[in-house]
Amino acid sequence: MQRMGSTEYVSRATNEDLERILAYAGRPGMISLAGGLPDPSVFPREELSEIAGMVIGEMGQDALQYSAAMGVPKLRERISRYMEEELGIGGQGPDSVLVTTGSQESLFSISMSLLREGDAVFTENPTYFVAYTVFREFGARVRPSPMEEDGIDTHSLEAAVRSEEPGRRKFIYVMPVAQNPTGASMGEEKKRHILEIASQYDLMVIEDDPYGLINYSGARPRPLKSMDGEGRVIYLSTFSKVLAPGLRIGWAAGDPGLLSSVSRVKQLIDLNTNTLSQYICSEALERRLIQRNIGRVVEAYRRKRDWMDQALRSEFGDRVSYVLPDSGMFIFARFQGVDTRKMVMRAVESGVLYLPGDSTFVSDPDYSTARLNFSYPGREEISEGIRRLGRVFRPSSP
Amino acid sequence: MQRMGSTEYVSRATNEDLERILAYAGRPGMISLAGGLPDPSVFPREELSEIAGMVIGEMGQDALQYSAAMGVPKLRERISRYMEEELGIGGQGPDSVLVTTGSQESLFSISMSLLREGDAVFTENPTYFVAYTVFREFGARVRPSPMEEDGIDTHSLEAAVRSEEPGRRKFIYVMPVAQNPTGASMGEEKKRHILEIASQYDLMVIEDDPYGLINYSGARPRPLKSMDGEGRVIYLSTFSKVLAPGLRIGWAAGDPGLLSSVSRVKQLIDLNTNTLSQYICSEALERRLIQRNIGRVVEAYRRKRDWMDQALRSEFGDRVSYVLPDSGMFIFARFQGVDTRKMVMRAVESGVLYLPGDSTFVSDPDYSTARLNFSYPGREEISEGIRRLGRVFRPSSP
Repeated sequence: MQRMGSTEYVSRATNEDLERILAYAGRPGMISLAGGLPDPSVFPREELSEIAGMVIGEMGQDALQYSAAMGVPKLRERISRYMEEELGIGGQGPDSVLVTTGSQESLFSISMSLLREGDAVFTENPTYFVAYTVFREFGARVRPSPMEEDGIDTHSLEAAVRSEEPGRRKFIYVMPVAQNPTGASMGEEKKRHILEIASQYDLMVIEDDPYGLINYSGARPRPLKSMDGEGRVIYLSTFSKVLAPGLRIGWAAGDPGLLSSVSRVKQLIDLNTNTLSQYICSEALERRLIQRNIGRVVEAYRRKRDWMDQALRSEFGDRVSYVLPDSGMFIFARFQGVDTRKMVMRAVESGVLYLPGDSTFVSDPDYSTARLNFSYPGREEISEGIRRLGRVFRPSSP
Repeated sequence: MQRMGSTEYVSRATNEDLERILAYAGRPGMISLAGGLPDPSVFPREELSEIAGMVIGEMGQDALQYSAAMGVPKLRERISRYMEEELGIGGQGPDSVLVTTGSQESLFSISMSLLREGDAVFTENPTYFVAYTVFREFGARVRPSPMEEDGIDTHSLEAAVRSEEPGRRKFIYVMPVAQNPTGASMGEEKKRHILEIASQYDLMVIEDDPYGLINYSGARPRPLKSMDGEGRVIYLSTFSKVLAPGLRIGWAAGDPGLLSSVSRVKQLIDLNTNTLSQYICSEALERRLIQRNIGRVVEAYRRKRDWMDQALRSEFGDRVSYVLPDSGMFIFARFQGVDTRKMVMRAVESGVLYLPGDSTFVSDPDYSTARLNFSYPGREEISEGIRRLGRVFRPSSP
């Protein structure tokens, strides 16, 4: 076969170094703390099996057909009610909801709709690395502000926004609950400050909230969207963490005009979101299966978080530091005197894998950090994984 | 609420005029021949209901979880075998298959991977209007060549290719079977010529083949991919037409290196294709449900095509012309002395909707054409729809 200029083959999106590392997760005997998978034991399989069979049998004519780019009307209505009842987000009727293939597709299609070469997007640092890859893919300059224990440094954020020309400021992207990767949750004052900045400098805010309903300390935090008096916030969430990610149902909630415009981009991508999954989620909301499942998820993950916390403390003592997360799936740990990127291949050899923290920084990476997942591994894997990490990170005797 | 510069809201993709027209499809009493929906009576609901329940119940741990960006391995393997057994496409192992959210997402992510501002893409004229919108979205210049009764004018295609600088020639996009909208199927000689052009001018070919297995005359045409000695063809297909579109499972088959690079873009869009649907399709292939369903689809649509053919002949006589399609869901009719774009609102008033053909042309639109769908409407709707069209298109007496 004749070669076709190999540069043509190069995707715009590459993080091959990271990919090469993550590929080791599949090695036999490997304990992977690098991923971000839910524990399959929290999937309500029996109920979902019954619902899927029923939905196809009784509504298959519609549930197996193409559907509207904005989403199945009944599901949009039930998501609207769910946000109001469970999250305190009012005033977002069905017209304010766009259903997408996971909330990832919301993020992608909003970015594609709004971003032009040279636009500025303001993010947390570190942040969700797939998000900043998407922003850059559409030509945006990513302007990060450091994370503090209670969320993004909003004074640094304001300075970054102020330093950009008004026409170049596009949106602020934040994860107020269990930020990925740090696990930090945002304080009320910072939330108010972000909305003030958005108002003063005429910006939109993308609030990415996969974990809003999962809380290990009992108190459910208020989403930014529930405090959004000017309609500047686009709220993203998903059923991936509270029901099952394989169904790939997420959504964006916000200004109907904007979302209808985003739905035209979404249509170019995949015409419409999986209709069967939309019917399944709609029925699961109606039966309150999702609402009931949240308790199960919280209980399972709180236990796992605590096991990992104990293992880290007993293995590393004060050579490790982190904020114990109130929600989410990760502990973002700082290992004193360790370069986690340099050590990752040695960890692989020792049968444990983590996400080197530097890959989650937009700039000024902290090489002593690692993102450790506690939702997927079992109790034994968590303790053995951290034990292996202890051996790898031990200061070597001369 | 303060307005946020309304230009920010404008998506890159708009065909609002067309959208406005298609919105009338939902009007009570409207007979829509404008869409492209399968007949839900061909969905094998009972079997799919049983399969979905079983897949979740017995494999829910994996079927409800995140999955690989390239697709579920077992499904990729079965698609590989399906292409070999049913389509005569050999040599495409599981590594050559990328599973996507409908074949639309294959088209989108391949375009995003390969196209750069100013690249030339060579298409049929008219063509699938969502495809050329996607190409333009990524900055490509679309170079159309006219359709003949047996497919694209390959001499015009070659001239267009030759006229472009080598570095600017990106790919040829064709639908060899039941081309959308014309319904034409490509002759063997043209297929060979396209592969020669691709080889001579060092181009890739995207072969979009949703209907390859649906054939009303009995003979299954050979896909371009099965004649592709140099690995230049990326073959796209889907289970939307032979099983159910609501499952949103399509795929691309071709060079593994290219597809692995495309999968990185796909990952930015939606992380992975719906896992549950992949398990359902995999099981449906294994039980030969899809293979068996093709016969049902062919029989139902052949009948409907013939009803529409008879209705058009008896209503319009020789004032209408078209190639009776051997496959697919549309008759692309030319109505003598009619401007279908101008008449569409009058048609709406008379309770019938069609797709004005001009919207499917990249250039040099033929305003006398309309795309008429026969797969979705029932027998009575087909005849009544064409009768209404007859009244609307009747040459008005002075």
